[in-house]
Amino acid sequence: MAKDMTLMWGSGSPPCWRVMIALEEKNLQGYNSKLLSFDKGEHKSKEVMDVNPRGQLPAFKHGNIIVNESYAACLYLENQFKSQGTKLIPDSPAEMALTYQRMFEGLTLFQKTAQSLFYERFVPENERHDSARKRNGEDLKNEIKLWEGYMQNSSGDFLAGKTFSMADVIVFPVIAFLFRFGLNEEHFPKLAAYHELLKNRPSIKASWPPSWKDTPGMLVLKDF
Amino acid sequence: MAKDMTLMWGSGSPPCWRVMIALEEKNLQGYNSKLLSFDKGEHKSKEVMDVNPRGQLPAFKHGNIIVNESYAACLYLENQFKSQGTKLIPDSPAEMALTYQRMFEGLTLFQKTAQSLFYERFVPENERHDSARKRNGEDLKNEIKLWEGYMQNSSGDFLAGKTFSMADVIVFPVIAFLFRFGLNEEHFPKLAAYHELLKNRPSIKASWPPSWKDTPGMLVLKDF
Repeated sequence: MAKDMTLMWGSGSPPCWRVMIALEEKNLQGYNSKLLSFDKGEHKSKEVMDVNPRGQLPAFKHGNIIVNESYAACLYLENQFKSQGTKLIPDSPAEMALTYQRMFEGLTLFQKTAQSLFYERFVPENERHDSARKRNGEDLKNEIKLWEGYMQNSSGDFLAGKTFSMADVIVFPVIAFLFRFGLNEEHFPKLAAYHELLKNRPSIKASWPPSWKDTPGMLVLKDF
Repeated sequence: MAKDMTLMWGSGSPPCWRVMIALEEKNLQGYNSKLLSFDKGEHKSKEVMDVNPRGQLPAFKHGNIIVNESYAACLYLENQFKSQGTKLIPDSPAEMALTYQRMFEGLTLFQKTAQSLFYERFVPENERHDSARKRNGEDLKNEIKLWEGYMQNSSGDFLAGKTFSMADVIVFPVIAFLFRFGLNEEHFPKLAAYHELLKNRPSIKASWPPSWKDTPGMLVLKDF
């Protein structure tokens, strides 16, 4: 069905994962799926660079059409396959607005997650400061609290209300990532319930990061 | 026509400006426009916080519906007023893909712009390093070169080809911002031509940052 599509991806990367969830939700199984290793630097290989000159994953092709940015690929798939699979952008103005709003607030959640959890990766050794580490941790904690509040006040079980939407496609992988890094379920009960609910959704089960399946999670965020 | 819409914004902010351009392109003039001052901290005022609890501008309301994230507001307006004004997301798969791709690469351009130009604003004094300043500058320069290349290879005068699209709504304000900070037109002739062309577009003229009109630009980027 989707034999004219190729996705190159890395396991556990929220940007890659969201494109995989979108493909599942739009019933686009059967695409050419290439799992690559960040650790081996395969995201900088010629194969990737030919599709995505930024040397980043995901790298996605549909026939001759290239859409690498994960938000772009998800919106492209929704719009090209509007009447196929799950409708991911609701029609009602209020639900549409909330879907878009949460999708793009997801950028901030992901940015604060990366900034705190990958401080050592992004900041050269001679530029590191405990004060920055502490501030990044507090920023992330406050951001997660905001999302716990969103789920508390939600009119349904999903990020934009009663139905699964593009907001979940985009943001769920980041929330799963936080739990993978040890986010405490007792401190964030609404996010934990959301995580449990979506874990069992077919699109998410089918695309669950293979590298997470037989390795233990981490405890970095347990005191949050 | 758009009397049930309120936009709170700050002059010169690319995220605010893009929502203003979208409103113009969708023929939604006549909205309730509130210019606030970042310098006076008005983005943290109760009036803003009631609409946008993050205390950021833009803050946008349509009736009772709130959409504050600038990308979200632009996509919401395009979808709610599809057949009104300029069509901002093309139907053809290839053009749609390129429009989305450039829109979201625009996040990286803006992030690198902010990181380099506002280093002093974002990084506390005791955490600043010349090595970081230098790296941020080089990252931004390389990113701008990439966009110059996109314009060189474009099939038309706009970011996603022959027609003005959401990619221009989203990214033009960042490019204008770079020229405001002194980007050298001779080093980036294609971006300069793009900047000149769009400056005269009615939606952009109507929304040009008032604070830029009678103050000189800066020279920060002149050697780029």
